[in-house]
Amino acid sequence: MDQVLTLQKDFAVSAKFRVSGKVEGVFRTGSEERFETFPADALELTFKGIPGDRHSGFTRRSGAREPWYPRGTEMCNERQISLLSVEELRLIAERMALPEILPEWIGGNFLLSGLPHLTRIPPRTRLVFEGGAVVRVDGENLPCRSAGAGVGANYPDREGLDLLFPKEARGLRGLVGYVEKPGTVRAGEGVTAHIPEQWIYETV
Amino acid sequence: MDQVLTLQKDFAVSAKFRVSGKVEGVFRTGSEERFETFPADALELTFKGIPGDRHSGFTRRSGAREPWYPRGTEMCNERQISLLSVEELRLIAERMALPEILPEWIGGNFLLSGLPHLTRIPPRTRLVFEGGAVVRVDGENLPCRSAGAGVGANYPDREGLDLLFPKEARGLRGLVGYVEKPGTVRAGEGVTAHIPEQWIYETV
Repeated sequence: MDQVLTLQKDFAVSAKFRVSGKVEGVFRTGSEERFETFPADALELTFKGIPGDRHSGFTRRSGAREPWYPRGTEMCNERQISLLSVEELRLIAERMALPEILPEWIGGNFLLSGLPHLTRIPPRTRLVFEGGAVVRVDGENLPCRSAGAGVGANYPDREGLDLLFPKEARGLRGLVGYVEKPGTVRAGEGVTAHIPEQWIYETV
Repeated sequence: MDQVLTLQKDFAVSAKFRVSGKVEGVFRTGSEERFETFPADALELTFKGIPGDRHSGFTRRSGAREPWYPRGTEMCNERQISLLSVEELRLIAERMALPEILPEWIGGNFLLSGLPHLTRIPPRTRLVFEGGAVVRVDGENLPCRSAGAGVGANYPDREGLDLLFPKEARGLRGLVGYVEKPGTVRAGEGVTAHIPEQWIYETV
């Protein structure tokens, strides 16, 4: 066994911390077939996600995001919930020269404000909602062409928005995560992100 | 809305990469009551984890690691699987002045070698086993006193090992994770860690 591997490396570890924001709106899909979401007064979260929502379940089917699996392969569902940021949506719209992008168009479930750089909140962060529900962050949601098509459908006079969105929304398209603790989330309540310790892993 | 929040920050993003190692052994608990594990030739993984193992299930009960919940609260089970490193176990033993620490004593399910600084492999990493099973990394497993007691039980002449272990095993006690894709994992097969992009999240 290589001696190097037995040495403990001193990674520079950033301390855990908390940052708080607000739930501006909650949304769910209207059916299991459609991608777009619709505003609701409150969302009930179970361990499977949002009951009746297209993305609920302990498992999901793989898609274009998992090219290493044959399409439709059953896998864990770490993408039960889509979280978006008011500030980031505004910035994407600005970069795409659009007046606005609504969370519903790209299938968002929670619209949050006040959490800086929401998309960059790291994996394993716990999002603790004031009403008691807790969502665990899987991580950044990579922007795809079908979300871009959802934006484009609302601006029929602009061509190519489906392709422009993945380009301009990189690092801004919010987070996906799964339910750690069930509960009801209401528009207007507070949310606190519990950021874990962080470091950059390297092998040498 | 604060203007600062609408600006996209350029986080220093480390590229994703892969690193490979080997499965040196596989282990499972003998019952749902006991913490210690026992060697097996192969482990079957389902979406719930290891069938019959103490830590299997889509949900688990909270414990001392989650002091913010009343003990026994049902929560998501991101801790289905415990992964340990040959190199790190050797280093913990050295630091505790013990001849060895076996993975079984601290409830390990997979003993791996060749993945440097296993415990520091970041959340959201995918561990792809040669036989087709995939485990998603939740993150570092914080060493606790009950694992220390598991070590101490094997060295009855040494006092205080239960308390020494959490101190000396910090950053070396391996990972916990959950099943992304079911399959059978056998001792001797290869494993590749798919490390995602990394950055340090900060609010300013």
